[in-house]
Amino acid sequence: MRKLIAAVDLGASKILTGVATAQGQILMREKFPTLKENGPDDIMDRISASISKLSVLCCNPDEQIVRVVVATPGPLSYPEGIVIGSPNLAWESVHLKYELSKRLNRRVIVDKDTNLAALGEYYFGQQGQPDSLLYITVSTGVGGGLILDKQIWRGHTGGAGEIGHMQVEPQGRLCNCGRHGCLEALASGTAISRTVKELLQQGKGIGILTMGNDKKDITAREVGEAARQGDYEAQMIVSKVIQYLGTAVANLVNIINPEIVVLGGGVALGWRDLLLEALNIYVKREVFTLNAENLKIEITKLGEDIVLYGCIATALRWMCQGDGSPDNVQV
Amino acid sequence: MRKLIAAVDLGASKILTGVATAQGQILMREKFPTLKENGPDDIMDRISASISKLSVLCCNPDEQIVRVVVATPGPLSYPEGIVIGSPNLAWESVHLKYELSKRLNRRVIVDKDTNLAALGEYYFGQQGQPDSLLYITVSTGVGGGLILDKQIWRGHTGGAGEIGHMQVEPQGRLCNCGRHGCLEALASGTAISRTVKELLQQGKGIGILTMGNDKKDITAREVGEAARQGDYEAQMIVSKVIQYLGTAVANLVNIINPEIVVLGGGVALGWRDLLLEALNIYVKREVFTLNAENLKIEITKLGEDIVLYGCIATALRWMCQGDGSPDNVQV
Repeated sequence: MRKLIAAVDLGASKILTGVATAQGQILMREKFPTLKENGPDDIMDRISASISKLSVLCCNPDEQIVRVVVATPGPLSYPEGIVIGSPNLAWESVHLKYELSKRLNRRVIVDKDTNLAALGEYYFGQQGQPDSLLYITVSTGVGGGLILDKQIWRGHTGGAGEIGHMQVEPQGRLCNCGRHGCLEALASGTAISRTVKELLQQGKGIGILTMGNDKKDITAREVGEAARQGDYEAQMIVSKVIQYLGTAVANLVNIINPEIVVLGGGVALGWRDLLLEALNIYVKREVFTLNAENLKIEITKLGEDIVLYGCIATALRWMCQGDGSPDNVQV
Repeated sequence: MRKLIAAVDLGASKILTGVATAQGQILMREKFPTLKENGPDDIMDRISASISKLSVLCCNPDEQIVRVVVATPGPLSYPEGIVIGSPNLAWESVHLKYELSKRLNRRVIVDKDTNLAALGEYYFGQQGQPDSLLYITVSTGVGGGLILDKQIWRGHTGGAGEIGHMQVEPQGRLCNCGRHGCLEALASGTAISRTVKELLQQGKGIGILTMGNDKKDITAREVGEAARQGDYEAQMIVSKVIQYLGTAVANLVNIINPEIVVLGGGVALGWRDLLLEALNIYVKREVFTLNAENLKIEITKLGEDIVLYGCIATALRWMCQGDGSPDNVQV
């Protein structure tokens, strides 16, 4: 019997499912909208249906899905797999692990999406095995995951990695978390759209608006495009985002001294040409010489699949018992 | 033969040496000025002489110092024990471990003072064994040490823990490290003295000046005393320091999610009554609910001996081989 793995990246707006081999090769994937307004039961039904469908499509008679790993936005109770109170999904105390195990009749692991992305990058995005890796997603929000000494660092209550809620501008914009000037409030996709909106309200940012074909919600994509085409206001937005990200990364490099910092998420992926070199220069100038030694700052090559790869990595570790794998974690 | 331990806290202005039992009891200690202008050789000679003296005074015929652990300000090459380029000691490439081993004819471990302070707190300052502890020293400078999963987290190149160089005020005062508004530039003892000096230059801060008996260099001690006696300007200084420390600690709690945050160093110890409650309130208000769960924020009860206790803890781990102790590290 050949063993296969099912991976689920449950996001606020879209769900990615995939089936992979024990060698980490993704055989097939599916993407569908979360429709979070339908509530948790509907979402869990559709995830379950998608895995069943992929299983039928992928699996030969001698193949079977033996592990299911699900990534979800936090906060999350781990390893119990209970979504405690997710602002992104608008869920309260959803027993995701238990419910999906029941539906799929298989054992399931649920972990935070940013932790899994960091692990995915660690196992599938990097040559060799770095001792430490800091992953930052710059997307609708800003989040992070820490791999320290080759393990996910979850913190005392599972709340580690909230990199988006480092204050980088004390007098800055109010964040959803209640603090002012958090990285997420200034450098996320949502924050960039809001900055453009504020510019437009002041009668500025016309170049950016044109780039978006005058559509209402200008995204980081259009800002990036306008910046590439030389629009000054767009370039200023990009430059501020680099400064905020650079400040946060420099702080983290001084404190955690990781071997590698990897960025992912829609904004980082879409702005690769705008961000990567500038961020490297900014951070390496700001931090201690010792901490800049051998420091790599990269944008992930795993693209949108980074979280799926983290699910696969978790499943593989789970299958190879004895490495601190959670195989003894019963549903 | 009863085994004893020698511990050395080599600071920029003073050196503390001590001899302790294998149960961690400090039998005798000595304190003398560093006189860093005399250079490394003289300092190492005097450390060596002090340990020899304490050894004669402490040791019965059936007792012997078997381990020597030295704490020094970073940056440091570990486990080689080479002080790379310490701004505090004004040392460049001093082979501290090798030189002291030669002088004492004993094997020596050298580690960063903040790492050792964190370890000292972990083993001797806490009931039980927390899974993670973040130590912050607020003294002449601001530094830190991380205990994650019961081990010192050193980072990729040994530079982890530079908590003093988190930027908490982007437009703030220039720091020695070259960045603006680092925690150290705003909340260290040196920074507090400088704030008073700036106030005095503006013809303000007279209440604080009186408290210092009109001496020239007003320290955090006088500012604290003035604040306790109701001086408004002193209270404002204290309140800003709490805000800066609170911002940094909140950022760290969101990112690392430690079980315990412990403050030490002269300013924290001297301002215990002014800082502790306010800092607890500030941080717990700023961070995520999950990260605030069970979070303890304390000021060390080990006082000035915290680094010596870290040296002792290291020596004990070294003596109990098999726990990742550095007993196989040859000079």
